[in-house]
Amino acid sequence: MPHLPPAQEEVALQFHQLCEHLMLPAVPANTVLGIEEGAGLPDAAFWWKERATCCKVCARRFGSQRQLVVVEPSSTAGVAVLKLKNLPVNSFSLEFLTELIINLEKLENDKTFRGIIITSDCPKAFSAGVDLREICGKNPAHYTEYWKVLQDLWLRLYLSNLVLISAINGPCAAGGCLIPLTSDYRILADNPKCLIGLNETRLGISAPFWFKDPLVNIIGHRASEHALQLGLLFPPAEALQVGIVDKVVPKDQVQSTALSVMTQWLAIPDHARQLTKNMIRKPTADLLVKHRDTDIQNFVSFISRDSIQKSLQMYLAKLKQNKD
Amino acid sequence: MPHLPPAQEEVALQFHQLCEHLMLPAVPANTVLGIEEGAGLPDAAFWWKERATCCKVCARRFGSQRQLVVVEPSSTAGVAVLKLKNLPVNSFSLEFLTELIINLEKLENDKTFRGIIITSDCPKAFSAGVDLREICGKNPAHYTEYWKVLQDLWLRLYLSNLVLISAINGPCAAGGCLIPLTSDYRILADNPKCLIGLNETRLGISAPFWFKDPLVNIIGHRASEHALQLGLLFPPAEALQVGIVDKVVPKDQVQSTALSVMTQWLAIPDHARQLTKNMIRKPTADLLVKHRDTDIQNFVSFISRDSIQKSLQMYLAKLKQNKD
Amino acid sequence: MPHLPPAQEEVALQFHQLCEHLMLPAVPANTVLGIEEGAGLPDAAFWWKERATCCKVCARRFGSQRQLVVVEPSSTAGVAVLKLKNLPVNSFSLEFLTELIINLEKLENDKTFRGIIITSDCPKAFSAGVDLREICGKNPAHYTEYWKVLQDLWLRLYLSNLVLISAINGPCAAGGCLIPLTSDYRILADNPKCLIGLNETRLGISAPFWFKDPLVNIIGHRASEHALQLGLLFPPAEALQVGIVDKVVPKDQVQSTALSVMTQWLAIPDHARQLTKNMIRKPTADLLVKHRDTDIQNFVSFISRDSIQKSLQMYLAKLKQNKD
Repeated sequence: MPHLPPAQEEVALQFHQLCEHLMLPAVPANTVLGIEEGAGLPDAAFWWKERATCCKVCARRFGSQRQLVVVEPSSTAGVAVLKLKNLPVNSFSLEFLTELIINLEKLENDKTFRGIIITSDCPKAFSAGVDLREICGKNPAHYTEYWKVLQDLWLRLYLSNLVLISAINGPCAAGGCLIPLTSDYRILADNPKCLIGLNETRLGISAPFWFKDPLVNIIGHRASEHALQLGLLFPPAEALQVGIVDKVVPKDQVQSTALSVMTQWLAIPDHARQLTKNMIRKPTADLLVKHRDTDIQNFVSFISRDSIQKSLQMYLAKLKQNKD
Repeated sequence: MPHLPPAQEEVALQFHQLCEHLMLPAVPANTVLGIEEGAGLPDAAFWWKERATCCKVCARRFGSQRQLVVVEPSSTAGVAVLKLKNLPVNSFSLEFLTELIINLEKLENDKTFRGIIITSDCPKAFSAGVDLREICGKNPAHYTEYWKVLQDLWLRLYLSNLVLISAINGPCAAGGCLIPLTSDYRILADNPKCLIGLNETRLGISAPFWFKDPLVNIIGHRASEHALQLGLLFPPAEALQVGIVDKVVPKDQVQSTALSVMTQWLAIPDHARQLTKNMIRKPTADLLVKHRDTDIQNFVSFISRDSIQKSLQMYLAKLKQNKD
Repeated sequence: MPHLPPAQEEVALQFHQLCEHLMLPAVPANTVLGIEEGAGLPDAAFWWKERATCCKVCARRFGSQRQLVVVEPSSTAGVAVLKLKNLPVNSFSLEFLTELIINLEKLENDKTFRGIIITSDCPKAFSAGVDLREICGKNPAHYTEYWKVLQDLWLRLYLSNLVLISAINGPCAAGGCLIPLTSDYRILADNPKCLIGLNETRLGISAPFWFKDPLVNIIGHRASEHALQLGLLFPPAEALQVGIVDKVVPKDQVQSTALSVMTQWLAIPDHARQLTKNMIRKPTADLLVKHRDTDIQNFVSFISRDSIQKSLQMYLAKLKQNKD
């Protein structure tokens, strides 16, 4: 950790702890969950089976007897709750991303749903973002596929016709902000551990422009320059003040507040709201669509460098050592 | 009305009442005003006569013995007060828009004027925006002309060389925000009925991009996403906080405050201010200039749909029934 | 001075006083400083000599025995303090701009430096911006060169790989804002004389678009429309509120606060921060790169007009008279 002035010390400490979490082995023995756990959720189980037959990645996943994304109907008609359950910290493995996209497409095409609340089912985090094991020690073809899927998730969320509300009930760092940044509304738990921000620079990397663009849209250009360059992780009060979240409530009210806000959004006729959302967001999304190939090439070229691979390997090894 | 949570109930009620106003017959017998009313205002009367001889639309209007836009010199040299008087709620009939544009062009080309204060002379509203009777039950040629004139008004106002101050002394909804959004400064009366906002989505339609663009310029991207998608109508305190107006004052001080603010703006040499205004606003205006034909086609195609026409007709019938 | 309403009177007065300062003869006999003054600063002195041998402009300057820009190492490793010392008010003479750019390039290419604090060594101002004597009574070739150098300074600063912090310890008007606007962070002295703003319109001219663009990035579009059109000079509290500066501290703490903030920025790995900075700022910089020739032509054509030249001459004469 670089040395920070006293005022930032606590934040830095929490950040350091979070970073340790990010790199914990993602599949501890005691957290393997089978599809049986979703037995009470007929729809989700049905989708899951259907998906398993048509999707190679999912088929592999199905074999692993884990369900990384759980879809539940909410108490409000037309609203699904999407629970991220890639223990311990919802890091973005390729498998997890794929399952997430499939669930989102399913909900998007299911006319009974008008809105989704996305939340975490991992006690330790909302999401830690990119799983470093996907971008370390693999080949360029793998990096290409991974980055493309991450872009797909962004596009799927940012231009979704559904109302998307992030119920952020845990720390949310770096790539983990993808979901909040592309949602329509963000609610954060009022807990000092619930830091949120794009802290990529502190890890020696740079957030892609398609994270920068929605951040600028949300908190403005000046705050984005500072937040991105300094890799700031905002505690709840500061997150609300800078505007990276729209509301802060006690942790046990995050879910109910999300439903209450959703009700307001669903009071609006879908078609008019969708046209309006698309009109506002399309110019930002078009930038990613236009430059996505170049962006993939840049990413793959950057991440394949020996120097970057070495520092990632050292980082992973050190964290594993801390864990042992 | 869609069901809204308790917190929004009062706002919704006021909105509902406003909607009823929007559709009242625009020419009640007791509100027909003749040119004689402007007799004490030599300039305005002169313009009016001149216009009547050179403009077909105005000639028709002149025949109707009504004056929809009254221009008065103010107590401050170089400042005109433009009073909107299309009773009951200054809805944008084609006739009213045309008269407004002609008056604006007149003032723009009259070197004795440097600024305009735009206000309402209707007790019930600043402006209710688009007159639905212009976009219901007519033919595509009419819709095309109507939309083009609305764009003309926007361009005339947004790039005006004059200082434009909106003295918003009544509710201002949907298209009625066109004038405030294109003004240099906005003052709102501090009255709970004085809601302001782009509530198009609540009527099942979407505001055009050239309403979205100045809104984003004024209140930022995130607030615009929420305001436009939710069709928010802001009461004065919230309007000031979000920034859609620059100042809130008691209703009887709106006019005097507008004059006082205007004096500050007129302290600046015109030429330098105009160059500066044009530099800042031209990129936004260029988007409308570039896409206006496509925008007209989209609008006409949308509004001509049977489903849209039917719902507009039902809405108009229902409101007329409420009125009877 | 145009008449302003009472509320703005004090600001206007201060502005008027500032304007008087701007035009004071820039080289009073008792402020000529020789290189000997920098004798305690080996690096700066070395650069100075080196520059003197390779740069025609500097060679001329060297002959004048003055040092307009003093570079000092700070107490923090890797941080240089760049002191502007073009008495009395750091107005941008061609000589001063050239010396500033050379120093910046030097620091940029010197791997021992990671950040620069830019401050004023003139008691009366941070910077008064454009030296009107460079744009009055000269020929078009001179105006072209001058404007090009000003653009060069902007580009050098805005895309600098170093962390730039403006320690604004005096009034900062018009072109004088170039350095703060292109810095990463701005700290202003909490003194009522320390006004900051782009007051070009009050002088009858318009700020170029490459001043408008970073201002919009920093304080948003609506505030920029008002600030630029009205030529607002913000006192410290208002400057902080509108966001044109990031922090306001007592004058004697400006320097120490700058160092403390710099320490936070240097906690971030350079490469990641530089990539991020470039990603955010490049689109804005590209606009100047793309349009710089047109911008030069517009400026030269505007400033060469007889009417503009006459009013500049009268202004200069009047201020010289006030001085005598």
